[in-house]
Amino acid sequence: MVDILHRIGVTASPGDVYSALTRVEDLAGWWTEDTTGDGDAGGVLQFRFEPGGFDMKVVDVRAPELVHWEVVDGPEEWIGTQVRFRLSREDGYTIVLFSHEGWQEPVEFMYHCSTKWATFLMSLKKLVETGEGDPAPRDVKISNWH
Amino acid sequence: MVDILHRIGVTASPGDVYSALTRVEDLAGWWTEDTTGDGDAGGVLQFRFEPGGFDMKVVDVRAPELVHWEVVDGPEEWIGTQVRFRLSREDGYTIVLFSHEGWQEPVEFMYHCSTKWATFLMSLKKLVETGEGDPAPRDVKISNWH
Repeated sequence: MVDILHRIGVTASPGDVYSALTRVEDLAGWWTEDTTGDGDAGGVLQFRFEPGGFDMKVVDVRAPELVHWEVVDGPEEWIGTQVRFRLSREDGYTIVLFSHEGWQEPVEFMYHCSTKWATFLMSLKKLVETGEGDPAPRDVKISNWH
Repeated sequence: MVDILHRIGVTASPGDVYSALTRVEDLAGWWTEDTTGDGDAGGVLQFRFEPGGFDMKVVDVRAPELVHWEVVDGPEEWIGTQVRFRLSREDGYTIVLFSHEGWQEPVEFMYHCSTKWATFLMSLKKLVETGEGDPAPRDVKISNWH
């Protein structure tokens, strides 16, 4: 099994980042505008994009340090994988350690998702630092796979 | 051992991307302005950043489809790791499959490097598509680790 890992640091507070990872209207500000559902523990979040989307069960949330989702619907390669955001404080920055764990194989789609996660995390950074992110459908395009 | 994987697609030709991965002046246009050395097979490239840098031995180059480097000097976690760029053509795009393979452990520095590679690959995309990238020291800052 292989994992996607990323690290960003933002000047916003852990509370603001935690909010951006749990409140539907904030999630819609950096990942995809078409976000619905419930970001609290036990809830399910629906993220929709032009070609499809993902349903995430909220496995665990601990304000303001952890958000843990499990993919319960979406592309076959994603089902059962785990997404974690771990927040901490360092040098005046809120550090986000991101992981998307449990891919069965390093398929080409995983290469794509790794880069795409990075650009969405930069969108999260922009949202919490400036008030405006780049969620789908106006997200940063990285290739023919968007 | 764990790997960093990314995929981008660019509208430039494979030849232009291959050039941007092998010619010192082109490498200086997307990764770091302070690039010296020899990008041909058997050569060594020196990439320098404010806090330090990397020396890459050019293990293999096959125009216009493969560039393979081995890290021969730099941070301890990087030494002996392998960097590969595999180029192909799809839907009118040149696809770059990037890997930075052979990390001993998924240390926090690897999380950082994964995100940083994504932003540098977007800089490569920008260079070959527009003629201007975002190399260090004017690279996209992602955290307190720059």
